[in-house]
Amino acid sequence: MVVTKFNEVLPKATAKRLPQYYRIFKQFVADKIERTNSQAIAAKLGVDSATVRRDFSLFGELGRRGYGYDTAVLRDFFSDLLGDSAETNIALVGVGNLGRALINYRFHDRNKMRITQAYDVAGNLLVGTTTDDGIPVYNISDIKKNLPNSDIETAIISVQTDKAQKVADILIDAGIKGILNFTPHRLEVPDEITVQSVDLTSELQTLLFFMNDKKETAKKK
Amino acid sequence: MVVTKFNEVLPKATAKRLPQYYRIFKQFVADKIERTNSQAIAAKLGVDSATVRRDFSLFGELGRRGYGYDTAVLRDFFSDLLGDSAETNIALVGVGNLGRALINYRFHDRNKMRITQAYDVAGNLLVGTTTDDGIPVYNISDIKKNLPNSDIETAIISVQTDKAQKVADILIDAGIKGILNFTPHRLEVPDEITVQSVDLTSELQTLLFFMNDKKETAKKK
Repeated sequence: MVVTKFNEVLPKATAKRLPQYYRIFKQFVADKIERTNSQAIAAKLGVDSATVRRDFSLFGELGRRGYGYDTAVLRDFFSDLLGDSAETNIALVGVGNLGRALINYRFHDRNKMRITQAYDVAGNLLVGTTTDDGIPVYNISDIKKNLPNSDIETAIISVQTDKAQKVADILIDAGIKGILNFTPHRLEVPDEITVQSVDLTSELQTLLFFMNDKKETAKKK
Repeated sequence: MVVTKFNEVLPKATAKRLPQYYRIFKQFVADKIERTNSQAIAAKLGVDSATVRRDFSLFGELGRRGYGYDTAVLRDFFSDLLGDSAETNIALVGVGNLGRALINYRFHDRNKMRITQAYDVAGNLLVGTTTDDGIPVYNISDIKKNLPNSDIETAIISVQTDKAQKVADILIDAGIKGILNFTPHRLEVPDEITVQSVDLTSELQTLLFFMNDKKETAKKK
C-alpha cells in the first residue's frame, strides 16, 4: 500500500491524480522544460495550486524552496509510483465498436501497457482472426484456458451492459485481479479484485453540470 | 453557480459525484426501495459514508434523523441539480470506431441526453448517410452552417489526437459551450468554455495503481 510520509493511506482523490501528474511531467521533459512550479502544474491539471502542493506534500520533499520542481526527477518519481517501469499486458473482452476503438487506442505509445489478447462470442466475425495490430481475437470460452497460462492480470470489459457481470465472473475465475469496466453496470466482485469504471453517462452529466454552473455564474456578474 | 448552504462554491470532487448519486437514487426507486442511509449509498459508490454525509450536508437537510433519505425525493433533487429535466442535444465529431460506439451508447435510455448530429471528414464513408439510429452524419465543413441554427451547445470529440484542437476551435467558433474530449490532447479553450476529458490511459493507470496497492497491502498482512 502506498502510504504518505505521515504513514497514512493516500487519499483516493490524490491517487486518481497520479496518472495526470505523471503525464504532465513526461510532457515537461519532452518539451525540454527542466523545472516548474505548482502554479504551472495546477494550470495544466485544471485544479488550484494548493491542491497540487497538498498532494505533493504527502510524499515528503519533492521540490526545493526557491527552485520549484525538477521535471525529470518528478517524472521518474511518478513512474515508479505507478509501476510504469513494468510491462503490463491486458486482455479485452468485447470486440464491438468500442472494443475495436480500444484496441486501436495507443495506450502503448508512451506507456508500457498494451492489449495483447481479445475475446468475443462466436457470433463476432473477428473471432478466430488477428487484428491489424497483431492482436488475436479468441472465443470467450477460451478465457479459462488462456489466461492462467499468461502473465495477464488486467482486463477491459467492453461488452453489452447485461453481459458485464457474467464476463467479470469468468475473468475473475481465470485469475484476473483488475478490471476496467466500460459498461454502466456496477460490477459485484470479491474484495481482492479492483474495478475502475468509466461511466460515459456520468462524464457527460458532469460536463453539463459544469456548463450550467458557468452559465449561472456569468448571469450573476 | 451551484453554491452550498454556506454560500460557498461546491467542491469539484463533490460535483463529480453528483451524477453517481443521481444514478444510485434512480436505481433505488426502480428497485422499489423507498428509503436508504449513507452507508448503503457509500457502499454503492465505493467511498466511505462520511464522504456521503459531508457531500449531502453541503446542500442542507436532505434526510431526516432516524429516518434516513427518501429515495424519490433525493432522485428528484439530483435530477434538478443536474438539469436532467431538460432535453440536451449533442453533436459528435469523429465517426470512427469510438464515435460509432458513442452513437450506439444508450445515453438516452435513462437520461435526456442524446447525440443528434455527427460529423467527420469527407473521406469517411458514413458522411452523407444516416446511421441506423437515424443520426445524420455530415461533413465537418458543415459545422459552421448547422450548429448556429440548432439548440446544440454540447459536443463530443472522438477524432484522432492531432486533430482535436482544430476540431475544438471549429466547434467553439460555431457556438459550442461544452466539450467532452475523448483524445489525450489537453484542449486549450477560452474561459467560458467547459471541457470534460475522458483520458483512457489515466483510467488504466489508476486501475493498475490500485491493483498494486492492494497487492502490497495483502503482502504486509
